[in-house]
Amino acid sequence: MKLHWSPRSPYVRKVMVAAHELGLADRITCVRSVAALPTPNPVIMADNPLSKIPTLVLDNGDVLQDSRTIVEYLDSLAGPGVLLPLEGPGRWRALSRQALADGLLDLLILWRNELAKPEERQTEAWIKAFTTKVNATFDSFEQQTAHTPTPSFGIGEIALGCALSYADFRFAELNWRTGRPHLAKWHESFAARPSAEATEAFDG
Amino acid sequence: MKLHWSPRSPYVRKVMVAAHELGLADRITCVRSVAALPTPNPVIMADNPLSKIPTLVLDNGDVLQDSRTIVEYLDSLAGPGVLLPLEGPGRWRALSRQALADGLLDLLILWRNELAKPEERQTEAWIKAFTTKVNATFDSFEQQTAHTPTPSFGIGEIALGCALSYADFRFAELNWRTGRPHLAKWHESFAARPSAEATEAFDG
Repeated sequence: MKLHWSPRSPYVRKVMVAAHELGLADRITCVRSVAALPTPNPVIMADNPLSKIPTLVLDNGDVLQDSRTIVEYLDSLAGPGVLLPLEGPGRWRALSRQALADGLLDLLILWRNELAKPEERQTEAWIKAFTTKVNATFDSFEQQTAHTPTPSFGIGEIALGCALSYADFRFAELNWRTGRPHLAKWHESFAARPSAEATEAFDG
Repeated sequence: MKLHWSPRSPYVRKVMVAAHELGLADRITCVRSVAALPTPNPVIMADNPLSKIPTLVLDNGDVLQDSRTIVEYLDSLAGPGVLLPLEGPGRWRALSRQALADGLLDLLILWRNELAKPEERQTEAWIKAFTTKVNATFDSFEQQTAHTPTPSFGIGEIALGCALSYADFRFAELNWRTGRPHLAKWHESFAARPSAEATEAFDG
């Protein structure tokens, strides 16, 4: 399997954390592919016209689009049902938790794209909205974690761990841990997992 | 079930098309909830801190996040396996097709948000990138449709139909049908389905 990959993409990291958790990392050939909102990359676009990563190309040529599809596919190879329950309330909770964490990431990345513009072209109302929604989502995860301090580890937790680590990497000034002790403690346990250590983001 | 809903959101429409296809529309109470990137809505945020729609609140209080989770949940109530194969290559193809169509929608909505700004704050490089990626994605769907003119109808087709109809609704000037006869013909068959007619977007 060939994965369009970057060491800094939190969505790619979701896939690689899952691959390590499932014992499948060795079966994935990572190809470094730069994806940025303003710069379509023809190499990625040959497999995915959206120019987004992660994109997974199977050995038979089939292309799997986006981190959610890829993580579930990997889970089916190793399990299924290891990182995502196959049915019942646990499945909807896991998918919703993943969607909430992915939505948090989407906001952080849009926010970063906005801050990358010259100041006179930034839109204050967008930045204010990002701040409100991002903090409300951190609060929601804090409440969930206070209620269930040690959730079983699956796709929802992978997405959450990657989102929080991305906040550390790109938005350290947000200090998301302040006032959110349960979430901070949970993130420590995420960061200590071998799968998280093997996939930590780096600049370069 | 309570759905945070709007007549103009293409992601909400995905859910409602699925609900009609599955015979579940009567079980959903739609609550009109306005979601816009620059304007967090406290009513939605009480259920979903991202302030995004669709958000589905079950009768037991559980909250289901985002159109993909909700569509799969509805499929599980009516089937499962009606709109999304439960396993095998057909499942990955359907999820990837949905992800590609959702990615197209994401781009169109970001593009629209960019165009809503005063001209001096719009970023030319973003608009150019949106144009390139969106047209490449239309082309990719045209090729897929030329290869399989009458795919079986599932979540991938719902997402594609909603994305193309959104392009008609908000980006008529793109003339996406030009040079893409297979996709144009397929979209006619989508638009003629009772589920699509019952959920057509309107201003108001």
